[in-house]
Amino acid sequence: MVPTISFDVDLIAARLSGLEETIIARFLDRAQFHENRMAYEKGKSGFEGGGEASLFELRLRYQEEMDAVFGRFCVPEERPFYRDLPAPRRKVILPDYGLGVDDYDTVNLMPRIVEAYLAAIPSFCPPGDDGQYGSSVEHDVMVLQAISRRVHFGSYFVAEAKYRKDAALYRPLIEKGDREAVLALLSRPEVEQRILARVREKADWLQSKVDRRIRKVVDPEFILSFYRDVIIPLTKEGQVRYLLARGSSEAGRT
Amino acid sequence: MVPTISFDVDLIAARLSGLEETIIARFLDRAQFHENRMAYEKGKSGFEGGGEASLFELRLRYQEEMDAVFGRFCVPEERPFYRDLPAPRRKVILPDYGLGVDDYDTVNLMPRIVEAYLAAIPSFCPPGDDGQYGSSVEHDVMVLQAISRRVHFGSYFVAEAKYRKDAALYRPLIEKGDREAVLALLSRPEVEQRILARVREKADWLQSKVDRRIRKVVDPEFILSFYRDVIIPLTKEGQVRYLLARGSSEAGRT
Repeated sequence: MVPTISFDVDLIAARLSGLEETIIARFLDRAQFHENRMAYEKGKSGFEGGGEASLFELRLRYQEEMDAVFGRFCVPEERPFYRDLPAPRRKVILPDYGLGVDDYDTVNLMPRIVEAYLAAIPSFCPPGDDGQYGSSVEHDVMVLQAISRRVHFGSYFVAEAKYRKDAALYRPLIEKGDREAVLALLSRPEVEQRILARVREKADWLQSKVDRRIRKVVDPEFILSFYRDVIIPLTKEGQVRYLLARGSSEAGRT
Repeated sequence: MVPTISFDVDLIAARLSGLEETIIARFLDRAQFHENRMAYEKGKSGFEGGGEASLFELRLRYQEEMDAVFGRFCVPEERPFYRDLPAPRRKVILPDYGLGVDDYDTVNLMPRIVEAYLAAIPSFCPPGDDGQYGSSVEHDVMVLQAISRRVHFGSYFVAEAKYRKDAALYRPLIEKGDREAVLALLSRPEVEQRILARVREKADWLQSKVDRRIRKVVDPEFILSFYRDVIIPLTKEGQVRYLLARGSSEAGRT
């Protein structure tokens, strides 16, 4: 009934690739609205009782509170930005994911994802203000959730797959807590290059039929650079954190 | 600062076409989860305090309450399913859309969209149950919002554009309240055929590169049939309702 994750490296890589279209599509949707700096300024939300928060912060908070109540953050790859969210109000039936940590917040890179994403807005949205603050922040949250899913799925499931494949190599490095050596061992520069070429191509392809009178187009180089400078490094950081927390003992798992 | 809608028929048609990709993409995302009937059964939500509602009803309600607070339903083409939603907690600055009615709920086809969509789930989702109820209803709500935007945008802006182009033809029919004649006058069978061919082709194209080991594929004929049997007829119904409520006097607008 409940799907289980296979640690087959090819299938996991295929799943990561499948998440790329969603991330790119969400970026393209957000780019239909201007930069709209006002939506990110503290205390300028125009929101009744919004206090010092920005409209963006309020939207992210409301979304995560709703999602928490429905059980979204029970799943390893769905990590929230806010830490004081309500408990789920439904019982979520989860498979045994077969991961080596019990607390999925061992890896939670959302604060860094949010920071990098907000800094990137002027690089892919048209400059200036179109007044569409509500739609802008709604789309921001959708981009962030898509990126988060990809980074955290990569952090947990790719790292576990790599460990299972080469446990004998990882074990001594993890025992020593040698962060740099773990990072070097799990890095695959040729795979990264392939991903970058592929996301660039997908960003091109997904926009190849758009009607430019009504849809703004995002430079595929931006998508490539966001993957290269944010998504890939954060995923690797997550893999290191996961592996160091995992320990090297197979018996460590319950 | 605030964008205004032009009533240029070509631009409005292009905007409708631009919404097609979103609708199709949302259908494809939902189809990654099984039918999951349990999520639609009343009283089976497993949600604390959920009462007799289904999990689907609860999710739609939570989403619309959040969206209402952020001002989504101030925009003509965003119509909610629930009628007793909270008031917006921010001041939304809207353009004068130039429409001929003040109450955008003059046309609200969400109840019929929801009914038709729920009936269609077995036609595009894999049969059976995968336990992913939370994700299923989250995606349901996204499909519904995409369809709603398209149907209501078409109801308001396409009808107004048609009226402006042929006011002398519409006026006497509207004065008589001749629903059938208004429907006949606004119907464009050749345009409908073009839309159907185009959405079929887009559904094919959007899935042409998917990795079938990890992504389920939706039959493009389903997308065509949903447009033919639900989206197009409901949009035309909305156009009739709008035009009859609009009246035939130019002075009727404020």
